Amino acid sequence: MGSKIRTTIERYVELVGAGSADDVVSLYAADATVEDPVGTPVRKGHDAIREFYELLVPLERETTLHPETVRIAGNSAAFMFTVVTTVNDQRFVLTPIDVMEFDDDGKITGMRALWSQDDMRVDTE
Amino acid sequence: MGSKIRTTIERYVELVGAGSADDVVSLYAADATVEDPVGTPVRKGHDAIREFYELLVPLERETTLHPETVRIAGNSAAFMFTVVTTVNDQRFVLTPIDVMEFDDDGKITGMRALWSQDDMRVDTE
Repeated sequence: MGSKIRTTIERYVELVGAGSADDVVSLYAADATVEDPVGTPVRKGHDAIREFYELLVPLERETTLHPETVRIAGNSAAFMFTVVTTVNDQRFVLTPIDVMEFDDDGKITGMRALWSQDDMRVDTE
Repeated sequence: MGSKIRTTIERYVELVGAGSADDVVSLYAADATVEDPVGTPVRKGHDAIREFYELLVPLERETTLHPETVRIAGNSAAFMFTVVTTVNDQRFVLTPIDVMEFDDDGKITGMRALWSQDDMRVDTE
């Protein structure tokens, strides 16, 4: 189970950086939930989750998983990754901790992202 | 709210390293839950939580918060810290990701620790 979870995490970070919204959604179970960041309304199901990633995918972006932070326990995992989005020559650099739950197939059944505006760094190119 | 949460996290890591079980329990709300590691039975309430920390406090131990990993969102937080316990000249080094929920007073209402045996390093002195 741990190796399926690790594979999903690696693929998730890769697709958030370079995939389509549908690609990312394909990693989620049909009735999965997303709360990103924690404290905002929970999105439930593929359609609501797709809407969320559709905000991101048109942007110039890159992602990096920090593999030394990946922690897997039972059917859960947490990890840090960095997403850099570039808008109008400004680079927005964010490194959340994502906490995920998985089903037996390694599909994500729940994702909660922990970050706040204080964690966002803005670099001007 | 974020500063109360940060204070509780710092105090938690300090007390796990150098406090009594009662000291640690005092950071939890009365009906709080602890799942450490995730996948093991949930302990609920001060008595059950105290039993958990009473396993740790007799050991020679030290803790370090990794402040650059602290992420706070809404009434939740996640962070990495390292706990080193020494038993019979063996040092057990573990760096979990802890995910916590808090009430308005900054008391912990839920703690889930993400780690597995694969994350435990054993050094012989």
